[in-house]
Amino acid sequence: MPDTPTPLLSDLLTRSGHEPRSRRAFLGQASLGLVIGGTALAGCSPGGGAGGDSARGAAGATAAGDAPQQPFNANSKLDTALHDPAAHGASSATPGATQGAQAAAYRRYDPALPPLSSERTLRLHWRAQEVPVRISRETVVAGWTFEGDIPGPIVHCRVGDTVEFTLTNEGAVPHSMDFHAAQIDPKVAFRSVARGQSVTFTFQPKWAGAFMYHCGTAPVLMHIGSGMYGALIVSPQEPLVAAKEFVLVQSEFYLGDAAGGVRPFDYNKMLSTLPDYLAFNGRPNQYVDEPIRVAVGDRVRFWVVSAGPTHPTHFHVVGEQFDTMYLGAPPGSPIRGVQTWSVPAGGGMCFELVCDIAGEFPFVNHGFGHGQKGAIGFLVVE
Amino acid sequence: MPDTPTPLLSDLLTRSGHEPRSRRAFLGQASLGLVIGGTALAGCSPGGGAGGDSARGAAGATAAGDAPQQPFNANSKLDTALHDPAAHGASSATPGATQGAQAAAYRRYDPALPPLSSERTLRLHWRAQEVPVRISRETVVAGWTFEGDIPGPIVHCRVGDTVEFTLTNEGAVPHSMDFHAAQIDPKVAFRSVARGQSVTFTFQPKWAGAFMYHCGTAPVLMHIGSGMYGALIVSPQEPLVAAKEFVLVQSEFYLGDAAGGVRPFDYNKMLSTLPDYLAFNGRPNQYVDEPIRVAVGDRVRFWVVSAGPTHPTHFHVVGEQFDTMYLGAPPGSPIRGVQTWSVPAGGGMCFELVCDIAGEFPFVNHGFGHGQKGAIGFLVVE
Amino acid sequence: MPDTPTPLLSDLLTRSGHEPRSRRAFLGQASLGLVIGGTALAGCSPGGGAGGDSARGAAGATAAGDAPQQPFNANSKLDTALHDPAAHGASSATPGATQGAQAAAYRRYDPALPPLSSERTLRLHWRAQEVPVRISRETVVAGWTFEGDIPGPIVHCRVGDTVEFTLTNEGAVPHSMDFHAAQIDPKVAFRSVARGQSVTFTFQPKWAGAFMYHCGTAPVLMHIGSGMYGALIVSPQEPLVAAKEFVLVQSEFYLGDAAGGVRPFDYNKMLSTLPDYLAFNGRPNQYVDEPIRVAVGDRVRFWVVSAGPTHPTHFHVVGEQFDTMYLGAPPGSPIRGVQTWSVPAGGGMCFELVCDIAGEFPFVNHGFGHGQKGAIGFLVVE
Repeated sequence: MPDTPTPLLSDLLTRSGHEPRSRRAFLGQASLGLVIGGTALAGCSPGGGAGGDSARGAAGATAAGDAPQQPFNANSKLDTALHDPAAHGASSATPGATQGAQAAAYRRYDPALPPLSSERTLRLHWRAQEVPVRISRETVVAGWTFEGDIPGPIVHCRVGDTVEFTLTNEGAVPHSMDFHAAQIDPKVAFRSVARGQSVTFTFQPKWAGAFMYHCGTAPVLMHIGSGMYGALIVSPQEPLVAAKEFVLVQSEFYLGDAAGGVRPFDYNKMLSTLPDYLAFNGRPNQYVDEPIRVAVGDRVRFWVVSAGPTHPTHFHVVGEQFDTMYLGAPPGSPIRGVQTWSVPAGGGMCFELVCDIAGEFPFVNHGFGHGQKGAIGFLVVE
Repeated sequence: MPDTPTPLLSDLLTRSGHEPRSRRAFLGQASLGLVIGGTALAGCSPGGGAGGDSARGAAGATAAGDAPQQPFNANSKLDTALHDPAAHGASSATPGATQGAQAAAYRRYDPALPPLSSERTLRLHWRAQEVPVRISRETVVAGWTFEGDIPGPIVHCRVGDTVEFTLTNEGAVPHSMDFHAAQIDPKVAFRSVARGQSVTFTFQPKWAGAFMYHCGTAPVLMHIGSGMYGALIVSPQEPLVAAKEFVLVQSEFYLGDAAGGVRPFDYNKMLSTLPDYLAFNGRPNQYVDEPIRVAVGDRVRFWVVSAGPTHPTHFHVVGEQFDTMYLGAPPGSPIRGVQTWSVPAGGGMCFELVCDIAGEFPFVNHGFGHGQKGAIGFLVVE
Repeated sequence: MPDTPTPLLSDLLTRSGHEPRSRRAFLGQASLGLVIGGTALAGCSPGGGAGGDSARGAAGATAAGDAPQQPFNANSKLDTALHDPAAHGASSATPGATQGAQAAAYRRYDPALPPLSSERTLRLHWRAQEVPVRISRETVVAGWTFEGDIPGPIVHCRVGDTVEFTLTNEGAVPHSMDFHAAQIDPKVAFRSVARGQSVTFTFQPKWAGAFMYHCGTAPVLMHIGSGMYGALIVSPQEPLVAAKEFVLVQSEFYLGDAAGGVRPFDYNKMLSTLPDYLAFNGRPNQYVDEPIRVAVGDRVRFWVVSAGPTHPTHFHVVGEQFDTMYLGAPPGSPIRGVQTWSVPAGGGMCFELVCDIAGEFPFVNHGFGHGQKGAIGFLVVE
């Protein structure tokens, strides 16, 4: 029999002495807490570069720095909710996420798909960082991030490439990494690591597509909702037809009141499912002011990820139709002549259009009760 | 011109003297009230076994026990809202649904797809029952059920098999049965029956798929929302590739405060569309504590039904991708390499993955504002 | 850096002296404000019939009557929010939308797909009108409309036909037209026009399908939400198999309290995403009382558009399955044997079923927390 069916962070915060009956029972409460016990499975030093002596292959996950003296990691409870709740309560306002907020600089998030490497192995060593992120002239949020930004970096590889990934946690609360493109044991590879610890794993994407990645530490709603997500774009081995390629990660922002010039992410608001803002690539309306620009005659390929945490993206380009979109792994399952398609929360899809004519074409979430809150940008065809 | 556009149970409860202008106008108010007049169309005794002398074929619906002395059935008003509203108001707290609640035992809902029968005719005689159902250690709900559980039984047949179905209502309010796999006149076959009455009909599924069934008595939101749903899995005539097959019915729980140790389903909360819990197969997080287990090398086939009443399932398996999923009737319209797909409310889809590696793989509703509330389980590959 | 990420009408109303840094920055605030400066691009007289001397072709958009003396059009701020906010605040209660409300007559919206013209050019001259619309016996809404009704007229053409369209604004606030079937520069063709002004453009649909059209004036949530939407059905050049064809436009109603016998649309309620009513073709439950009727043996084709502004349609016909539906432009990407499919907000899809048997078949939005509020009708097969 499962425990109580209320796996809410707010509940957990009030009973830190709670001892779950089993690891999975605990995970049920806190949901998607992908943690392991305190024993390191294999060694590589914290901060050690990826691709070192870590194990390879689908099961090649290794732990790094899982020191048993860390009490919150010693008993399968490496979970946001139980680690120093007083520090952040049901919000993202940890010390790192709030200090120096007013100094946070705004920058446009570059939506261009990075080129493929000639190497067939990507070596990524990322940091989980709790830092303030400026999402508009007026608003700084207390972000939980990969590499200091919301969303995290765009990664691009091919089907069959090898991704050697290490996450080192520089934050106050446990974090982890879940790549949707990986076929791997989540219990090991996607487990949470505490401050100063690292986790390393290796995988080879089997399918092309726009794959979400995100922190999977419990409660996962809190970690996705506080900014820990991004896109891994996997191109097929045979290149798709040439196009200008862009990545759009839609996400929602559920914010508490500002304190010290920074607005924390608010877990209870996330549970209400009514966001304050939406954005493509982390800044509401950023591509209205600084559009995406292409030339007449270009084919444009949008890789769209719905990071959520809750809502889909009803993706539409005003004044255009999608010549082709792919329901499964591109180039499989193409459909033609689409005005709007819904990308599910936690999913990704690939949309193409041909820019026959010049103009300024808004791309939007056409579910406007949400989309109106910032999921709008411009594709300028010149 | 339709009547008022406010077909709310709460409205209806305050005007029991209301006489609708026409049957359909009434149905408009109460919505999806699939009832017929008081004259039995054909006879078979209440409680008579299915497959007796009832008519066969797509139009073979029969009424049973529609005694004209039942006032709420004599004038096309066999509707929850008008039957003894004082007994349950806008909640599911009928006497049967609440008595003996604390004695209700918890049991895991077996997600395994039952094997096909060698018979080509399924004879089902089910009871609509209002009974308390324990959905977790701590929570008992005032359930409206098919056969005493939420969801109702999983049914499995082939395309072209014959399903002979009888529903006998043992509850206080009218109930009915709507099989999405049936091509049949709903006015007759899916009509409401009062306490002690039965309805019998026969159908042959034409398409393979994961088909929802549910009570269609008005207001249908109340009846689905209070637990009257389940899955009929129709396999194609030519068997699909061998797999371990499981059925997951996602649904939402909108609950009022506990009284007498039981929480009623709350109609007004259903209208808010913000659920308290979600679950696969009726118990939040049940497969976290008691996972679904398969072996390395197995192909796993999930038949996923989104019972709602409102939200889709953004279905995803952490650490895996769907090798194949079917947009239409399997094996038609396969798509490949899917991370997450949205199963619409009132719909069902078929997902397959190959368990190449061992591990503990959470399956989730990746729309986490909802999914975090219990739509999480574990697939353990050993 | 974009401006504040709060592009809410209510915000804008309080700072009419605000001078946005750039046109697009402004559009970011107000979102989807598709406006141009005050210089007319080409001339055709206001009220002049479509198809006159207006430019043709994909880029053939022309302005008409953009008199520079209209201050709210002279500086790229032709936006609902800045035009006389005192007159309507964050509601649709303009003078035209409210006067004479009680005299507004109810009429069923004919769902039949109009026949194709033998002409290959459609010449449409529509008016944007703010008028009261009776959506039920008891409820009149302060509508913003195309041609005085909600939804606007159903248009039917073939792939490659030419649509010559003129919109003349007879309302108090700026309006515009965005056809999802047009490939055209939205900045020019879909720009807002003030009272008395017109815009003309010409396009040739490239793809078959059920395409939404709507007012795109900022904030677009307000204009769609207040009634300015409809369906353009594009048949393929090679006719689809013969069928009885119907058009269903699902939309949501977010209403304020009645004043003077008319309920205004309420922008803040739209942002809550919890509607009061839903409807197919603008009247909640209208096809319950006055069903759609066909004969046994008919193939029925539903062209379903989800106008939103926010929610999808989980489209389902009780007692039937969709023999065929088309994911892309019909007849492309057919899938078979579907019980329920979700049409995204801002999208459209084509569903077919064969009426083998007589009966009364409800068609519904099976997301019943919303569907129960009026997205229900009857298909009667006789």
